[in-house]
Amino acid sequence: MDIARPYLLFLGDVPDALAAKTGLGIVDWRRDWCVGQMRLPGCGADAKLPEMTIEEAVAAGAKTFVVGVVNAGGVLPDHWVASIVAAIEAGLDVASGLHMRLADVPAIRDAAERRGVRLHDVRHSTERFATGKGTRRTGRRLLTVGTDCSVGKKYTALALEAEMRLRGFNAEFRATGQTGVFISGRGVAIDAVVSDFISGAVEWLTPDNQADHWDVVEGQGSLFHPSFAGVTLGLLHGAQPDAFVVCHEPTRTTMRGVGHPLPTIGEVIDMTRALGRLTNPNIRCVGIAINTAAMISEDEARTLLAETEEDFGLPASDPVRFGVGPIVDRLQTEFPV
Amino acid sequence: MDIARPYLLFLGDVPDALAAKTGLGIVDWRRDWCVGQMRLPGCGADAKLPEMTIEEAVAAGAKTFVVGVVNAGGVLPDHWVASIVAAIEAGLDVASGLHMRLADVPAIRDAAERRGVRLHDVRHSTERFATGKGTRRTGRRLLTVGTDCSVGKKYTALALEAEMRLRGFNAEFRATGQTGVFISGRGVAIDAVVSDFISGAVEWLTPDNQADHWDVVEGQGSLFHPSFAGVTLGLLHGAQPDAFVVCHEPTRTTMRGVGHPLPTIGEVIDMTRALGRLTNPNIRCVGIAINTAAMISEDEARTLLAETEEDFGLPASDPVRFGVGPIVDRLQTEFPV
Repeated sequence: MDIARPYLLFLGDVPDALAAKTGLGIVDWRRDWCVGQMRLPGCGADAKLPEMTIEEAVAAGAKTFVVGVVNAGGVLPDHWVASIVAAIEAGLDVASGLHMRLADVPAIRDAAERRGVRLHDVRHSTERFATGKGTRRTGRRLLTVGTDCSVGKKYTALALEAEMRLRGFNAEFRATGQTGVFISGRGVAIDAVVSDFISGAVEWLTPDNQADHWDVVEGQGSLFHPSFAGVTLGLLHGAQPDAFVVCHEPTRTTMRGVGHPLPTIGEVIDMTRALGRLTNPNIRCVGIAINTAAMISEDEARTLLAETEEDFGLPASDPVRFGVGPIVDRLQTEFPV
Repeated sequence: MDIARPYLLFLGDVPDALAAKTGLGIVDWRRDWCVGQMRLPGCGADAKLPEMTIEEAVAAGAKTFVVGVVNAGGVLPDHWVASIVAAIEAGLDVASGLHMRLADVPAIRDAAERRGVRLHDVRHSTERFATGKGTRRTGRRLLTVGTDCSVGKKYTALALEAEMRLRGFNAEFRATGQTGVFISGRGVAIDAVVSDFISGAVEWLTPDNQADHWDVVEGQGSLFHPSFAGVTLGLLHGAQPDAFVVCHEPTRTTMRGVGHPLPTIGEVIDMTRALGRLTNPNIRCVGIAINTAAMISEDEARTLLAETEEDFGLPASDPVRFGVGPIVDRLQTEFPV
């Protein structure tokens, strides 16, 4: 799926920033892709973009009306349909991250057919994937992995892409989740792919490339998460990464949504190497990204990072607080051009 | 999905036995669930069931018309549609293992709606699963795993169920593939489930049960297969097996469909334990099932099995040639009632 840019961000009337996290994530990383935002009365979220009507957005060049919200049950509220239909009538494509498909709403489907615009359901892939082959591909790949879900794998991948590009790398973020797809304008929400095709979909997402090209692949889940480890493993095998970065949140005690204890960083490094070598015998860890947001003091954060570096002999940083420079340094040493 | 029994087996006009392997598998294991077979002129497969018209099958008590074949591309040939519609008109449910959905053929969909019968697409789950929770459930579970795809995981699970029942175990085969679903009348084709729900679907398939009840879960793929390891891991975590049996084909040199070498039995035992303990810390291997069909001499087969037993300190047998008695012996020792 290739989503046309720029976007008009629709936030509906969601109650708070959390419900608009997809839209806010887009603005964090791709402010210049967004011409404005459109909100309904009572909206509790604000992406700090110019407020625009559909007509103003079209005049400003908008190509896609992005429903950048999540809501309970993933269902599209009836009172949003009129806004979506109006966007379609004005010639905009529509992209949604809700579980419910846009085309399942007859008014939206009919308007899109009549007007000839595209409907993107980011959580549903229409691509027909092949099963994975496990064959080595040209070009280089980095994958972010985690001790848990929601520990910064997307953020770290985007920060690495940005830093690598600054240094002249030929680097490209590869999205595997819905917010990432909006941020890069393409990708596959891998958790929505039929399980037979997990690794095949990732092979499709990160095809053969130039020898010095880096795909920076957004990780999902954790090999130690009982709900999602299968997705994580299929993603690892399909991505066949040369390098991986472990993401971690040091204050969490149980894994997200379940009662299982978090694995250690060392366990994640060992298991990722043990399993990853099936499709890339040279897989290696190049760094550790630690989310230290819960540590008020910068000293405390720096101490933890220094200890982690010593424990593993690898660069450790907080991508938000201190950037990912040390990890990219290591990448340059380990993979000279 | 619960498929009503008995079945009328439809073999169409497939060219050979391989194309009818789903139907033949049903007859191998559930001869008494099949009232007869129906074939079109030119059919090259024979399930050795009484030839029946739809009317005769209905008179004999048939409840479901089973399209027990695979064909290139999984597409339903046009000239089979009349037979399927006739079965529906006669009041039979229809179950198919083809990739193409029955209801995607308008004549079939319309007839089913008019007549009020059920259409089962075994490769497509309509169940809405939750994500896996990883919580320990009551009852006991055995999972068959493999060094590769197509090494006898379904056969071994069915043979174990049969032997366990003979000995008075409260044992139940749990199907995770399409042929298995037909054989047990229920189950989930796990490779067709959206990847976010792999382990959740298996948790649904093998729910809490009596303390002495055994689910004998059909394995899929291999942790060492680059195309399908994600499915295998999600299945392992969802099944949270107390016991597992490794299935192996000793003459194969590369994994099915890819160029990767086969792992050793020892590697599969170690990796299954390392990953399986996430949802069941007491997971243990109770035996090895080796398909010795390629060894002409029984002596050669017995020698290989004896060597394998010695190497791993575990019972090893060929379920087809020698049965699974030694593995069930071990199960009785390791898990006394």
